[in-house]
Amino acid sequence: MTEDQPALREVERYMRAVIDRAESSGMLDDRAALPLYRVLAYHLGWMDEQFRPARVDGGKRIRPLLCLRCCEAAGGDPSAAAPVGAAIELLHNFTLVHDDIQDRSRTRRHRPTVWALWGEAQAINAGDAMFALSQLALLGVADRLPASSVALLLRAFNETTLRIVEGQVLDLGFEDRPSVSVDEYLTMIRGKTAALTAFAAWSGALVAGADPERLERFRLFGEALGLGFQIRDDYLGIWGRREETGKEPADDIRRRKKSLPIVLLLESMTPPDRELLDSLWSGPEVSDQAVEQVLELLERYGVRERVRAEVARLHQEAHSLLAEAAEPGPARDALAALLDRLATRSG
Amino acid sequence: MTEDQPALREVERYMRAVIDRAESSGMLDDRAALPLYRVLAYHLGWMDEQFRPARVDGGKRIRPLLCLRCCEAAGGDPSAAAPVGAAIELLHNFTLVHDDIQDRSRTRRHRPTVWALWGEAQAINAGDAMFALSQLALLGVADRLPASSVALLLRAFNETTLRIVEGQVLDLGFEDRPSVSVDEYLTMIRGKTAALTAFAAWSGALVAGADPERLERFRLFGEALGLGFQIRDDYLGIWGRREETGKEPADDIRRRKKSLPIVLLLESMTPPDRELLDSLWSGPEVSDQAVEQVLELLERYGVRERVRAEVARLHQEAHSLLAEAAEPGPARDALAALLDRLATRSG
Repeated sequence: MTEDQPALREVERYMRAVIDRAESSGMLDDRAALPLYRVLAYHLGWMDEQFRPARVDGGKRIRPLLCLRCCEAAGGDPSAAAPVGAAIELLHNFTLVHDDIQDRSRTRRHRPTVWALWGEAQAINAGDAMFALSQLALLGVADRLPASSVALLLRAFNETTLRIVEGQVLDLGFEDRPSVSVDEYLTMIRGKTAALTAFAAWSGALVAGADPERLERFRLFGEALGLGFQIRDDYLGIWGRREETGKEPADDIRRRKKSLPIVLLLESMTPPDRELLDSLWSGPEVSDQAVEQVLELLERYGVRERVRAEVARLHQEAHSLLAEAAEPGPARDALAALLDRLATRSG
Repeated sequence: MTEDQPALREVERYMRAVIDRAESSGMLDDRAALPLYRVLAYHLGWMDEQFRPARVDGGKRIRPLLCLRCCEAAGGDPSAAAPVGAAIELLHNFTLVHDDIQDRSRTRRHRPTVWALWGEAQAINAGDAMFALSQLALLGVADRLPASSVALLLRAFNETTLRIVEGQVLDLGFEDRPSVSVDEYLTMIRGKTAALTAFAAWSGALVAGADPERLERFRLFGEALGLGFQIRDDYLGIWGRREETGKEPADDIRRRKKSLPIVLLLESMTPPDRELLDSLWSGPEVSDQAVEQVLELLERYGVRERVRAEVARLHQEAHSLLAEAAEPGPARDALAALLDRLATRSG
């Protein structure tokens, strides 16, 4: 996605500049236990595990792209939003580094995670540093925007972070519960995923100088996009292909994750089927055979179709909200195309 | 310390207000897995483990006190620095919540740590939320200071955070190394401890409107104070009394921590004594008898006296730097008294 987006290249340059500046003004030398900033470069796809320059998958940069496109669609210069885009991507990656520790995920984007390579304790440090760097990136707007907008942006950025953390608190708690309602699930993803896409769309429009009413429309558009994105992610977590997702097929079943398909299944099941599911899930590991049986249950209750329909509904809703937020034109068309790509992606 | 400091009460109120506002605008209800904001209130000493209001030891609030006193000593109104003091204390406590996970510390201030009560994964979340809250607290100065000072303050706050994380990276790495030089140790505590006291002193003077030269003097004063504070802490980690420190006596020996006394000992020892120490430390646990023998070694090499002398030297240096930074008067006297109290504290 980077190739066809000159504005995204600017985001990437900005992220690198913030990290390079921090490294060169920092205290760590070659004797340090962890080359902290190079670990971040590894996570972001700029280096391999031996810290040689690399160009590997470091994520799709969807959130900064959304921010820049919304800036443009609200009549602004997208390159003015580059520091905000960089801050958003760094914030997102800070949460990923910590999530991987919390979820015991050893692989992300086909590569070992930070904690899997350098241990939990240092991965906590890496995430903390990435969070501080995201704030420094955001401060890049300080001399480009009016002071009142800067304060508004910084406040919203940190409130967004709280919503993301709250979402993660809920998500971790779901693991220990027998069932979760669809409402609770939606609250969780509204925090964990949609809060940041909502901020991305809103902040892009803010940089463009949009008025409060239009800002709110962009925010709602970004939220609907994020909800749809997460539910598509849940779909792929069960029915995605390894080559495309970089994860084991049915990974979320193996991890007993209460993603939307499982939430819907739990809500619909007869008591005997529920007992069956509980027994399939009760062992220390979910066997291949058990995974097959859970997949059958999901098919039998029509869950796959229901999840697809929910993605389609949110996709339509996001299109309507976009039409309300942005004037017709190439920038809005690009956002619509991004939306279509996200709703149908397979990895 | 809170009782005799009306200005500190304002810091405390400000911290509570920031957390309360976040909770009331947040998404968590009673069904959430973790009452995130009440967990923070527990850590800060405002609630007990059942989330009943409490007034227990939540730390000495030395850093905000330093910030407010420096504001006053630079000719400012200390209450104008209350948001900065609150931000500093929240930042400090974010690092403590994460440090306790990294160091496997089950007790802090005579109470179980956050991860010991609610698990590692949720403790990571609690720390992350506290960090975001510290940024929100700091933004409280946005309408009280010129925009350029606000940007400067925010940038320095996050650069300080990077130095703290770098210090923690170094500290964790020391555990796996046979020895550490005094220089490396000093770099580590300059990040882990002195970066924040330096920021506290500097930011207090910034709120007072001090010029760059005076700001730098206050920063150096805060740094010297922090270095002395940490070395006193290292002293107490070995020779402190349980009733006063809230930790086991010789806790740092049991944890094989490369604090200054051990660094000095390793540097001075004869090879046979080094072999003895290695054998004392090699087992899965350090026995009471082994602790006694390490204490004897420290005595024999005069380490206790050398650590005391280093605290005294930094104490004198901080006094000189204070005299250069601040005009004579009651505010400077109060800072001098704080400095004396810290250099001789026993808990």
